[in-house]
Amino acid sequence: MKYSSKLIADAVAEFTKLPGIGEKTALRLVLHLLKQDEEKVSYFGTAVMRMRSEIKFCKTCHNVADHDQCEICANPQRDHSTVCLVESLRDVIAIENTNIFRGVYHVLGGVISPIDGVGPDKLNIESLENRVKEGTVKEVIMALSPTIEGDTTIFYVSKKLVPQGVKVTTIARGISFGGELEYADEMTLARSIATRQPYENVLVKGGQ
Amino acid sequence: MKYSSKLIADAVAEFTKLPGIGEKTALRLVLHLLKQDEEKVSYFGTAVMRMRSEIKFCKTCHNVADHDQCEICANPQRDHSTVCLVESLRDVIAIENTNIFRGVYHVLGGVISPIDGVGPDKLNIESLENRVKEGTVKEVIMALSPTIEGDTTIFYVSKKLVPQGVKVTTIARGISFGGELEYADEMTLARSIATRQPYENVLVKGGQ
Repeated sequence: MKYSSKLIADAVAEFTKLPGIGEKTALRLVLHLLKQDEEKVSYFGTAVMRMRSEIKFCKTCHNVADHDQCEICANPQRDHSTVCLVESLRDVIAIENTNIFRGVYHVLGGVISPIDGVGPDKLNIESLENRVKEGTVKEVIMALSPTIEGDTTIFYVSKKLVPQGVKVTTIARGISFGGELEYADEMTLARSIATRQPYENVLVKGGQ
Repeated sequence: MKYSSKLIADAVAEFTKLPGIGEKTALRLVLHLLKQDEEKVSYFGTAVMRMRSEIKFCKTCHNVADHDQCEICANPQRDHSTVCLVESLRDVIAIENTNIFRGVYHVLGGVISPIDGVGPDKLNIESLENRVKEGTVKEVIMALSPTIEGDTTIFYVSKKLVPQGVKVTTIARGISFGGELEYADEMTLARSIATRQPYENVLVKGGQ
């Protein structure tokens, strides 16, 4: 597309670099911003740039943080003996929004995937081992996606942690809430039967 | 949603202010930017802020411009005797992308809409009259949307221009290319029959 202003063209080009934003959407966003007060647009640009330049990563769990330690690790009311292992900070946000988990996290930064050149040394596994070695961690919950890479990572990490005497669990895999049995794949269905739960457990634990 | 970092929360909040971007999309965009180099994110923020703070409006046609005059008005190869009247700069971009119009534009900045409190005095109508008074303009093409407000504006503007001896035309209204007669509304269909064209005209003018 042709724009009669290079400033507009530049802003549109920057927006189209974002995922899922094509040129028409980018133009709509730019024209929207053009209509706003200069101050508001300045807030927008500054918030985005500050986010990238001032962000820190928690020294304990590698989650994003405004200081050296993230809000979750710094909170004494959280259960520091239960660590939930997740792939990325997106998963931390997802789990936090369930309001059910009161422990702390450990962000791996990815999963083992030889095809993408991601070996165990590129992930935050060593720091997890060190956390466990300190002795306060009693349980590590593996909250990784149930993919080949996720399962490989769970296998690798648990091999490292189990000898240290820590309890290793994985999140339950089964039929989604509201999902229909008919449309569930065989793997999921088979696993949900194999790992069936006493009904009382569901009642008690579901309401935690 | 809860974010463990205020910087992330601020950036997400700014993105959700944009049209058509909800909180989940905003988070996806922010996490994408977080993965980019600091320099690239700085480009993004700067491009957006510069676009708003340095943008100018063409003194002749009120289109966006990097200088006092927009690229189109400053181009001597354009036909300055044919002025296309449009509602907004979005329409300028749309018409420019057809590559068929070689004249210049005049951006009204809206259409007359008493219900929204937009009277003729809030639009760039006087500056159009002055352009026509200068004598170089031979034809004004009304390229406004075929709505009640658009038609009112065309009526008002043409009343001002016709006495000055300038030719006033409107863009053709009819069935869209690829549109099906069956689904066209009666107004459009009736008008397309009333303003039917000799077949040779379509052949000649369509290929311009």
